[in-house]
Amino acid sequence: MTLGVREHVQESSRADILEAAASCFMERGYTETSIDDVARSLGATKGRIYHHFRSKADIFAEVFRVGMEMNYAAIEPYRAMSDPVARWRHMAFAHAIQMITTKPFQRTVWVGVKMHLRGATTPEQRSVFAELIEYRTNYGNVFRETLVEGRESGDFRFDDLSIANQLMFVVLNSPIFWYSPRVGETRADIEDLARKVVTAAYRGLGGKEEQSTP
Amino acid sequence: MTLGVREHVQESSRADILEAAASCFMERGYTETSIDDVARSLGATKGRIYHHFRSKADIFAEVFRVGMEMNYAAIEPYRAMSDPVARWRHMAFAHAIQMITTKPFQRTVWVGVKMHLRGATTPEQRSVFAELIEYRTNYGNVFRETLVEGRESGDFRFDDLSIANQLMFVVLNSPIFWYSPRVGETRADIEDLARKVVTAAYRGLGGKEEQSTP
Repeated sequence: MTLGVREHVQESSRADILEAAASCFMERGYTETSIDDVARSLGATKGRIYHHFRSKADIFAEVFRVGMEMNYAAIEPYRAMSDPVARWRHMAFAHAIQMITTKPFQRTVWVGVKMHLRGATTPEQRSVFAELIEYRTNYGNVFRETLVEGRESGDFRFDDLSIANQLMFVVLNSPIFWYSPRVGETRADIEDLARKVVTAAYRGLGGKEEQSTP
Repeated sequence: MTLGVREHVQESSRADILEAAASCFMERGYTETSIDDVARSLGATKGRIYHHFRSKADIFAEVFRVGMEMNYAAIEPYRAMSDPVARWRHMAFAHAIQMITTKPFQRTVWVGVKMHLRGATTPEQRSVFAELIEYRTNYGNVFRETLVEGRESGDFRFDDLSIANQLMFVVLNSPIFWYSPRVGETRADIEDLARKVVTAAYRGLGGKEEQSTP
């Protein structure tokens, strides 16, 4: 089951602001998004936003944090599975579902990572960012460790762990760039899409045989 | 062999401007890049740039066009190969090399596609963009047709052509996001990297057995 923003943000007016902000960051990036844009897309006043957040940077950090928190929650039920391939399949599927169903948050995470990589953060932002990036790195490491175990068990075949992990995330994350909801789309359609993404990633890792459906 | 910017842009001062602009667009995106930024990174005057280009939009379109032109040139020698898998391997390898060696141009193409998709172009830009996007779509179709043939010959196994093609490009294009040159890097290192990318993409398509080196 995927937990939504509401389960992660107690106060509903805060959640509304984060959802609106995530969509703005997704569409325009960080610099080109203003508090005015967020207020406008909510049909709210700037005052209402400043009641909950001190600055655009604060909102951005919170969207990033909630985005990652939802991802952690989505993979949590599978982390203790002993078989690395079964664990990988379930985590990868949960991750792909997240990329589809919480796309604006995940695109904002991606915007944040890009800003961090090119050093486009202010000194004050830097320490907040460092924590967020670490939070995301640790999430990535959960998968990375699973790849190591899966290679040791002979289920995955790849030479270079970093590149394999990189390319795996490139595939699993890709719906944040190309997914857009279709009219009449059902949960089953979304799961079907996620399954295709997971299959491509699994094969890319040199997975031995076709996976079964998680 | 990969042809560089110099082979595609006759006049060397024009090529200099395009290279500097591609790096600016890669780092800052379209909106945040000014002609001043491009001039500064070249150590040139704005006048020198306006001698060659009318506007930022013109430079951007030209970086996009040259980026795609280099890609077409890179795959050209292989397009007539009759075996679809061999053709795919050679084209995919040439494409991956392009993503690595002409990264600023390819990132600019990607910025352009994103702008187009979210309608962030002015009316005047729209017709120029429509042509560029079509130029890129046709390039993508060369691969897409190869996938169709490879599936018919039983070499590739996937259900959904559009998703398979999408995920394949996600992998092949990914160096534009994660590649950065290392000190002392050789041509062989770059080819090794491109090979790993091609292997992951090939496997993702359900390619039958490990590919040989193109």
